[in-house]
Amino acid sequence: MKLLSLALLSATLWAQPALRFAELRDLKLAGGQTLPLCRVGYRTYGTLNAERSNAILFPTWFGGRSENLDGFIGPGKMVDSSRFFVITVDALGNGVSCSPSQSTGEFPAITIGDMVASQYRLATETLKLPRLHAVMGISMGGMQTYEWITAHPEFVKLAIPIVGSPKLTMADLLLWQAELGTIEAVQKAGGDPRSAMPAVRAMHEFALHTPHWLTTNRPASSFSEFMAKQQADSQSGISPLDYAAQLRAMMAHDITRRFQGSFESAGAAVRARVLTIVATEDHMVNPEPALTLAASAGWPVVKLTGICGHQAPGCEAGTLNTRIPEFLNQ
Amino acid sequence: MKLLSLALLSATLWAQPALRFAELRDLKLAGGQTLPLCRVGYRTYGTLNAERSNAILFPTWFGGRSENLDGFIGPGKMVDSSRFFVITVDALGNGVSCSPSQSTGEFPAITIGDMVASQYRLATETLKLPRLHAVMGISMGGMQTYEWITAHPEFVKLAIPIVGSPKLTMADLLLWQAELGTIEAVQKAGGDPRSAMPAVRAMHEFALHTPHWLTTNRPASSFSEFMAKQQADSQSGISPLDYAAQLRAMMAHDITRRFQGSFESAGAAVRARVLTIVATEDHMVNPEPALTLAASAGWPVVKLTGICGHQAPGCEAGTLNTRIPEFLNQ
Repeated sequence: MKLLSLALLSATLWAQPALRFAELRDLKLAGGQTLPLCRVGYRTYGTLNAERSNAILFPTWFGGRSENLDGFIGPGKMVDSSRFFVITVDALGNGVSCSPSQSTGEFPAITIGDMVASQYRLATETLKLPRLHAVMGISMGGMQTYEWITAHPEFVKLAIPIVGSPKLTMADLLLWQAELGTIEAVQKAGGDPRSAMPAVRAMHEFALHTPHWLTTNRPASSFSEFMAKQQADSQSGISPLDYAAQLRAMMAHDITRRFQGSFESAGAAVRARVLTIVATEDHMVNPEPALTLAASAGWPVVKLTGICGHQAPGCEAGTLNTRIPEFLNQ
Repeated sequence: MKLLSLALLSATLWAQPALRFAELRDLKLAGGQTLPLCRVGYRTYGTLNAERSNAILFPTWFGGRSENLDGFIGPGKMVDSSRFFVITVDALGNGVSCSPSQSTGEFPAITIGDMVASQYRLATETLKLPRLHAVMGISMGGMQTYEWITAHPEFVKLAIPIVGSPKLTMADLLLWQAELGTIEAVQKAGGDPRSAMPAVRAMHEFALHTPHWLTTNRPASSFSEFMAKQQADSQSGISPLDYAAQLRAMMAHDITRRFQGSFESAGAAVRARVLTIVATEDHMVNPEPALTLAASAGWPVVKLTGICGHQAPGCEAGTLNTRIPEFLNQ
């Protein structure tokens, strides 16, 4: 979603609600370690109603920041902030919330579950919310959505995982390992991990779209310009340490783990009503596990079928801007 | 085609014709440099007829060796060696023919055109052939086939590029740059380029199949075993220097360059009858340029439409073992 988000960002930065931080003390991590202090970045839109029952939590995608979600929120968009109190949250490891790049010492491994644990404390301790009307997210935000509805089933009324996944497949693991292994190989050689990022970005761009979309929309002559931009961005963009930490979190993601690997048991434990949204031609987050879980739990599915691949939520925004508000207004 | 070729190799190694070498003196390269001596590996099957008119040249794919092609040759297979004199050739830079890994000093950059130039000298000087009945190849072998019919139009009667391409697209360039950039980043950091290969192989495996094929045929639980094997193979497998040299050759490949970028002019210059074979779901070598050229030149096309992606020639061997012999028997 990177390209889309950057476009939205430049178009809407002026209108961004202020970035706030929740100061979480002693955040326990799934790996057993505890972060003495973890600051979690978030932004809020709209007004919490008297019953405190209209809050929607919207965490970031892989490498994304809360500011990147601004373009999805507003009247006529995916989430109507005139009806709902919307909280966009910076996922752990994104460079805004507590992340390896901010740590002087060794930063412990984080999981998708840790991201959700930090968001649960933000919702309950900082914002004093009794429950969430909805949790929704795109890509890694969808992974966090799946974690939310299995880790805190009673706390979420509605859930919308968008091109997310409850569990990774061989295809996902090969892609993320290709990116992670490149950063790690350069680190192991004693090099600056930023020098790995242009190759990592080439791989990411390859899988972000379908080859058909790339061939149709990007002339081969644009390749050298693209790589020159990645070279420049590798110095100023997201820290490779943060990028690697979120890659490891995604690679370890599997909501069926606490259900003996059973999609049926995982689905049966969910209390939220779930609208599953997948891109059938998604080459970055494989749609099969989301479709398997939805089928076993009897959840409705919206299939985005265009050639945009993982960027379908941007390319087919019209569908989402209809189906998602319908689902949220219950 | 790696997995397929390895399977064939183990099954048929005992039957391999001997590896021979053509000693080419002063091989002029497209880059302007000259190799004083380049040994080109090849194997032959069947008998050259009295008219010397039944020779088929079959160069290797990216990273492949002539021994890997053995399984495609024989009665009832793609090429019937009881009718044809078949020459399988090791492409420059594959570690058998002259390659960076065999060079003590700096080895010059090689192109797909240089591979074909070495094969033309093998055919004319070493084997004294007046003409080739056919040139055929898979993947990078298909790229060499396109180069053959435009560089030596009068020398080739029939041509069969299989999941090859006359020119790379943005999708191809991103994939190969991701692999090449990983090797180069580790080299730049002063590391052993072999340590880059596990990440490169993960990337390669991801694009070799469709995500759907991977998800359907490989459980996520097989991921760690796959990566452990890549770790081991990185020490014994193809030299990263050779791998990078062939990547650079593919990235520079464009048969339309000598025709002012025109597919029409390139197609019009071809004298051979061409059977274009593509995999519509190929994520490694994009089929669009091959389809565009075939359409503009009016060449017949065989579309492999399964979910195997770039490995369709192995998965849909039945189709090729019918259509290719039909085409060769003219």
